[in-house]
Amino acid sequence: MPNIVHRIGMENIGPEQAYKAVATREGLASWWTEKVTGESKVGNILQFRFQTGVSDFEVLEMTPPKRIRWKCVGGPDQWLDTRVYFDIMQEDGETILLFKHCGWREKTEFMHHCSTSWASFLLGLKELLDGGQRRPFGPRYRRISRWSK
Amino acid sequence: MPNIVHRIGMENIGPEQAYKAVATREGLASWWTEKVTGESKVGNILQFRFQTGVSDFEVLEMTPPKRIRWKCVGGPDQWLDTRVYFDIMQEDGETILLFKHCGWREKTEFMHHCSTSWASFLLGLKELLDGGQRRPFGPRYRRISRWSK
Repeated sequence: MPNIVHRIGMENIGPEQAYKAVATREGLASWWTEKVTGESKVGNILQFRFQTGVSDFEVLEMTPPKRIRWKCVGGPDQWLDTRVYFDIMQEDGETILLFKHCGWREKTEFMHHCSTSWASFLLGLKELLDGGQRRPFGPRYRRISRWSK
Repeated sequence: MPNIVHRIGMENIGPEQAYKAVATREGLASWWTEKVTGESKVGNILQFRFQTGVSDFEVLEMTPPKRIRWKCVGGPDQWLDTRVYFDIMQEDGETILLFKHCGWREKTEFMHHCSTSWASFLLGLKELLDGGQRRPFGPRYRRISRWSK
């Protein structure tokens, strides 16, 4: 099945700080969307809201400070039942975040869009973890096309 | 075979301008790397140089203002024989650039890196086509990890 994959590296933080950014609601609000509700615990649902877009994920696994697994239970049709994996590791003096959005049924144009969109948010996360500004969906967010909504 | 896919949309330019950015050496130098040599014509080789990184592509197809196809003939082992496709179209009042880097033999960690790296360059291209600054590999380029070289 086609996957979206990404990798960012941060020199000035440890795995714990990267883990916090994907394991807590506050962390997720700082780089993906400020409109996130639900409790980030295994078995719970995290709800993300954008301008008009919606996505809900069930938390499948949380292994600090290494791994988070989610399953999409609400949102765009093409996202239903797909999985999002965050893996954190240290390599060559950097903290690495490996990202996967797995289980796409088809290589659609929307998948192309989502790949760039995830990259844009993850590059925002890297910028933030490197000491820069927050840039989640909202006023400072840089749209990648009219599909960013 | 695993692919890297991306999609960006520009409101203020037509397909011809997007095509020029991927079809000419000057265009490619404005968003990927300034160190590009060779003639952008079918059958020729384009040579891209970074800090230490290298990649050479044979131009397979040029169909203005719609499509460019390249085949990797030099560079990282994992890139050899892979293809890069640029497709340009108009949708809902936007000029869309669809990008594919096809034919990866395995889903490696390097592929994750290249996916984010292509996104970073393509987001730079969008920024430029939207009227912003040039940000190819060089002083203004934002590294995504130590693998950006």
